[in-house]
This record gives sequence, structure tokens and C-alpha cells, in this order.
Amino acid sequence: MTMASKTGKVINLGLIGFGTIGTGVVKLLRENGELIERRAGAKLHLRKIADLDIEKSRNVFVEKDCLTTHAEEILQDPDIDIVIELIGGYEPARAFLNEAARQKKHIVTANKALLAAHGDEIFQIVAKEGVQIGFEASVGGTIPIVRTLREAMVGDRIKSIYGIVNGTANYILSKMTDEGRSFAEVLQEAQSLGFAEADPSFDIEGVDTSHKLAITLALAYGQRVQLKGLYTEGISQVSQQDVVFARELGYRIKLLAIAISRGEQVEARIHPTMIPLDDLLANVNGNFNAFHIIGEASGSVFLYGQGAGMMPTASAVISDIVDIAKEILKDPLKRSSGYFASNVHSRDLPLLPMADVFTNYYFRFTAVDRPGVLSKISGILAENNISIASVIQKGRKESGAVPVVMTTYKSCERDVQEALVRIDNLDVVLDRTIRIRIEDKKL
Amino acid sequence: MTMASKTGKVINLGLIGFGTIGTGVVKLLRENGELIERRAGAKLHLRKIADLDIEKSRNVFVEKDCLTTHAEEILQDPDIDIVIELIGGYEPARAFLNEAARQKKHIVTANKALLAAHGDEIFQIVAKEGVQIGFEASVGGTIPIVRTLREAMVGDRIKSIYGIVNGTANYILSKMTDEGRSFAEVLQEAQSLGFAEADPSFDIEGVDTSHKLAITLALAYGQRVQLKGLYTEGISQVSQQDVVFARELGYRIKLLAIAISRGEQVEARIHPTMIPLDDLLANVNGNFNAFHIIGEASGSVFLYGQGAGMMPTASAVISDIVDIAKEILKDPLKRSSGYFASNVHSRDLPLLPMADVFTNYYFRFTAVDRPGVLSKISGILAENNISIASVIQKGRKESGAVPVVMTTYKSCERDVQEALVRIDNLDVVLDRTIRIRIEDKKL
Repeated sequence: MTMASKTGKVINLGLIGFGTIGTGVVKLLRENGELIERRAGAKLHLRKIADLDIEKSRNVFVEKDCLTTHAEEILQDPDIDIVIELIGGYEPARAFLNEAARQKKHIVTANKALLAAHGDEIFQIVAKEGVQIGFEASVGGTIPIVRTLREAMVGDRIKSIYGIVNGTANYILSKMTDEGRSFAEVLQEAQSLGFAEADPSFDIEGVDTSHKLAITLALAYGQRVQLKGLYTEGISQVSQQDVVFARELGYRIKLLAIAISRGEQVEARIHPTMIPLDDLLANVNGNFNAFHIIGEASGSVFLYGQGAGMMPTASAVISDIVDIAKEILKDPLKRSSGYFASNVHSRDLPLLPMADVFTNYYFRFTAVDRPGVLSKISGILAENNISIASVIQKGRKESGAVPVVMTTYKSCERDVQEALVRIDNLDVVLDRTIRIRIEDKKL
Repeated sequence: MTMASKTGKVINLGLIGFGTIGTGVVKLLRENGELIERRAGAKLHLRKIADLDIEKSRNVFVEKDCLTTHAEEILQDPDIDIVIELIGGYEPARAFLNEAARQKKHIVTANKALLAAHGDEIFQIVAKEGVQIGFEASVGGTIPIVRTLREAMVGDRIKSIYGIVNGTANYILSKMTDEGRSFAEVLQEAQSLGFAEADPSFDIEGVDTSHKLAITLALAYGQRVQLKGLYTEGISQVSQQDVVFARELGYRIKLLAIAISRGEQVEARIHPTMIPLDDLLANVNGNFNAFHIIGEASGSVFLYGQGAGMMPTASAVISDIVDIAKEILKDPLKRSSGYFASNVHSRDLPLLPMADVFTNYYFRFTAVDRPGVLSKISGILAENNISIASVIQKGRKESGAVPVVMTTYKSCERDVQEALVRIDNLDVVLDRTIRIRIEDKKL
């Protein structure tokens, strides 16, 4: 890229990883370069791009001598101010970020997996070296969740956060709900359209969602980033039958990341959840992401946008680059303390054990159609302190199993687990009971 | 307040205006003081509060010697770093802010009326004196609209913004829609509940909405804050009959602030608008506010929250105080350039004249029930290049007037105005035609 600068000031960037998002970043720097320079107060000059494959055509013009296959050329270049890491995965991304910080370079990354697993180590190195790290693109794509939690709600206490943060899982559940199709069918379609990976477990089993919840928890509660202990259940067990019963009960099923402040502890869990049709999150469809944050002072704050994709994610990356560029311009020598330093403590998040969680439940029992079954099931529920809110039992079949659906008032997860083991051992119960949690303030 | 500080660093605050929001700010500083100190890296010490009435009980503890009736005591206090202006209105707020900047004090304000009318002058003084101004609370309350436009979308071009930014107007329209009641009845109820002012024109005639749109436009398009030329139409003419027809057509009526980039110009207007029921904004009810921003790279970004109220607004005020406190801590001597300096130019926003706007329309004609009326009306529309998308004409009455409802494809405001003058002059048309604009991507 050319070096012409209207402001006379230049911030040099090095990009590691020239894939989809990296290409989006290069496009935005090129197409909106003047606009960004005016807003940032300096020209953002992309000095070097490192990628293993520098021959591939990427539909954006880059000067040949800007490309390298050696990330070291960026990490060791004394003129580069900010390193943008967009290769994803744990290694060598982790090594590159640590080396960048040691070389006193600021960092921008979209790597949620790395931050969720090694965020603590990275934030400590960053703070020690006195450089900044931007990671707005790592959670929620264009949704300004990092800014909202760290800045906009800085004076508030976060009561709870409910997030839809995986576009693939949300796309599949939306299609199942709106088109009455099975999980397997929709997944296959999503794979053939390129919306889901060949190995989709990362998205559909809640792994990606747990990474994003780990980062969100650290931001909201000022604790160490930790994945351990986050109860994680994916959507592969959600059946069309449950989608239909959910609708009959006035709910939609969404894969939610949930964080709720419980006194000195935090309740954190990821699972398919029934939410009322008029809930804001129930209307987040397709591959969109959203967060519903409830603050003690602020009340409800709801944020919605593209959680992934080339240009949306690239826009979030640029926002972090500009923030850091402005810091460098203000104070080029004495670099500020780490991005996280004043906010996060190296203390473990005191997680409420999942067995102690109270919530509402949907059960679908598969029972023989015989008198007394309902009384046996409800008897066991009562013995385990579980109060029934509603029952749906559809007309009897000539033979075989019938579904019996129940919703409950707030009940303890431990009690529910115990009750379900006993119920599933009844000889009148023919299949494993389906349990989906409900978030419904009216229950 | 006591001066005990864990961080050993103190930022001194002076509050001018101890009304509802001011009391909320004092409460938050008191109740969340430790949390805020940990996050800000310094204690925020409220050194002085100025208000004309310092005797009134406010349900929050404040030391007597902290209170004064003279704002000058804050403005001239060399130890005060940040002045928080929460008196509202034009004067003396304007004089106080200008004096604060001249005394090299940073400023936080929630005063949208002042910024909309005199923002340009204030931002220039602030830039000249090298102090910062925070005004997140002036638009959208807890919604981080300033941060989103200035920071999160800094690398993107804003295609359009649709906002519901006045809680009172939205409360009235929501009640009219959900409860089938008249404008006058709901307004009266809102007044008796304290949700609407005795003189409600500021809220219901779109004045407050125009202030917030003026500030939003400056943020999105980097231009001078200007109120002049913003087409503004309130909700006082919205009738229950139109609410019902809207529903029949699949719409809800909302008071929208609209900004759309049109090449070198910007289209900006405020008026009651029919929007599809499945639009995110159609589900923003009661006194909530929301923005739907569409960026070229980011796509749809939707933000929702409490636009007013004591604690939500106070939380937004604190967010600005902490941002500025962090800046002061980094660089206490050389203060940074004005908050807006790199973003806003003293250039007028090139507004597209309202007559040149193309949009969709809903018309309700009040016509005599006689053959040939429909052909006369549709003839005039056709002569003015207005294409009809749908017609609703309900069963004939024995005598008198019948409503004829039409929606149109994209038409030019100038053509519509001309056509309506001609139609309203027809002797078969008995009353002034009702015109409500529609925002519907499917039309």
C-alpha cells in the first residue's frame, strides 16, 4: 500500500493470517482508508502480511513485497506498532502473540478459542510488557459486547447475561423451527451451503459458545478467563418433536450462553433453552448473534448483529486497531497499561456448581399408555421437590408409547437429575426422558 | 464522601444539577464506589454538588459541606478534574460548560437539547482548550450509541440508521396499538402516571427526537451538529383508525428518527412510520429506545435499552466519567485532544431536501361512497407517478363517508404532496387525507 498520508502520521500494522477475515481487513483498510485516517487521526499502513500461502488469489490488491511466509518478519520488524493475529487456533497463534507482546507490539486478535484457553497467560504478558490487546472481534462479531461490558456498563453491576453467540447453531434451530425439518436434515443442508463445518461438533456441541461465554464472564465479573466448570450441552439432541411442543407451550428453543450473578457466585451454563416467543432473543434468527444484558442500574440492554463473516468481523478488527492507534498517537513512548489490567484479577471465577442451579424445566417422558403412569411420574417429581406447572398428554394410541410433556416451576438441578434417574428406571417408561431447561420469568 | 482510596489515585468530580439524574449519579458513585475504583484505576471523589435547592431531601446521603448553590464554586475549583452538567436546558448550562472548558476541566453532560442547538460551539471550545467531553447519556440512555458509532463502527460506512429515541411517544403508540385506545386517552393516562410532561409537545411533536437525531447524524457522518432542515412530524395526528389499518396491512406505527446515506447527501427525517411486524423495531415497546444501524461492512447492528430514567441515565453518565478518568490517569498533564476533534468537521451536513425523498406511503382518503371515486383518486396518483401497491375499501355505508386506504410503491415526496393537494380538492373527498410513511423493504 502507498504511504501517502494526509495527517502526516502513520501507524504500521503487521497482519498474521491472510484468510477470510484477514482479506476483509485488507479490503476495509483499502476501501475506507481515507475515512479511517480521518477518524483515527493517522494513516493505518499495512506494512507486512504473513501467511503460509501467499500465492493464492484473494480478490484484493496487495503489493508483492508486502507478503511473507515468515511471521517472524512481522514480529521482529521494529517499525510495526500493531500485530493483527487472524490465524486462529492455539499454536502457533499463542507463540506469536506472546512474542509480539515481548517485542512491545500491541495486539489485535479475533481468536476466541485461544483467549478462552490461554487468555489469562496472554493478558498477564500483555500487562507486564505494557502493551494493549484488542479482542472485540472474538465475541459476537460486530456486536460491541467488549465495549459495552468494559466501558458503557462500567459503573453498573451485571445481574445476568443471555447470549446467542453461535450463528451455525442458531441457523439450524431457526430452520428446524420455521420449516419443521429435522436436525440431521438441516445440518446436512448447512454443511452443503458452507454454513457448517464438515466436523460441526465445535458449533453444535456448544464448544464455541463456551469459549465466548468464558471471555464474556471475565469481562462482566472481572475474573480470570476460565473454561473449566462451564456446564455445556449442545443442540444435537434437540428433536423436531420438542420444537413442536415448545411452540405449543409458547416457546422457541435457542442455544443460550447464560451468566447469572448469585451473590458471591456466578451461575454459568450453555444449553438448549426454551424461551417465550415474545422474548427479544426468541426473534434472533438465522446466523445472527445477540446478547441480552441486565444491569442493576441500566436494566435491559440488548445488542444484536452479525456474529461472524468476513466483513462484519473485519469491521470489528478495525475498531480495535483504531482504538489502539489513538492511544499510540496520544502517548507514543510511555505505553499504557494492559487493556485488561485494571479490570481483571487473577482470581478464579467462583462458579455456582451446576447441581445447585435452580431453573424451570421441560420434560418429555416416553411412557406406555396405561392408567397410573402419570401418577407414578408425578409422585417421583413431588418426592424430589419438583412442582409441575403444566402437563400435555395427547390422545391415546392403540398400542406403544405416548409422549407426556411437563413443565416445572423453579427446581434444583440436583433434584431433577435424581428424579429423572428414578423415572427412567420405571418399567412404564420406555425411553430416556428428554430434559430442556426453560428461561421464563412468568413461570 | 470520604476520601479513602485503595488505588491511591483520586479524580475529583463536580456535579452541577442535583435533580433526578444527578441523584442517580450520586447513588451509583456511593453504592458501586469500590467496584468503579477497581475498574477505573482511581477513586472518583465527588467533591462538590451545585444546585439551586440544596435543602430538598433526595434519599441519598451527601455531606453538608459538599453542597453549594453556586456553580462557580465548582467551575473555579482548581482541584476539580471533571464537571458533570445535569441541569438540562440551554442557559445557564451553556455558559457553565463553556466556562468549565476554559478552566481546563473535562465535561460530562446528558443535555441533548443543548448539544443539538449549540453542540458545534461547545465541541469547538472543548477542542481548543484540549479537554474532553462525554455525552453518551444524551442519546439513548443506556444504549451505547456514541461508542458504537464512534468506535465500534469506526472502519465502516453507515448506510442507514433507524431509531426509536423518545420513550414517551413510544409508550403512547404502544398503548394505542396494544389496547385499542385513543391518542388523547393514552396521553392523559401517561401524564397522570408521570410518564409524560404537562406540556407534552416536546416528546410527542418529535422535538426531542430531532435533538437526538441531530447528535446521531454528527456521529455517523462526521459533520457539524445541526437541527436545521430535519423534517419533523410528531404523533399527535395518529388515530386509532390508522393503527387498526396498519395492523391489517401487517405493520405497526412507530415514531422513527431516520438517517439514510444517499451518495453525497444524507436523508434525515422524523415522522410516524409504519414498519413490518417482524421488523426488530416493531417489537420495541413501552418506554424502551432502540437503534437499528446498517453498516456497509457490518450489516445490521441493533441496540436496545432504557432511553431515560434515573439509574439507566446515571449509569451512562458514569461510563463517560470513567472513560475520561482513565485518560487523565494516563496523561495528567498533556490532555488529549477533544473528544470529537478527529471525527467531526465544521462542515454542514448536506441534507437531501425532503421533497426529493423517495419512500413508501400509506394514504387514508375520506371519500363519499359513490361510483367513480376510486378511479378519480387513482387517476391523480398515476398522473403524479405514484404506483399503488394495495387498496383496502371496506363495505359501503348507507350514507356519508367511507375510508379508502392505499399503500404505494416508492414515490417521491414532492409528487405525493402535489397529488394530495389535488385529491383533497376533489368534491368527493370530504376530509384531509391522512398520509403515513412506510419503511418496508418488501414494497
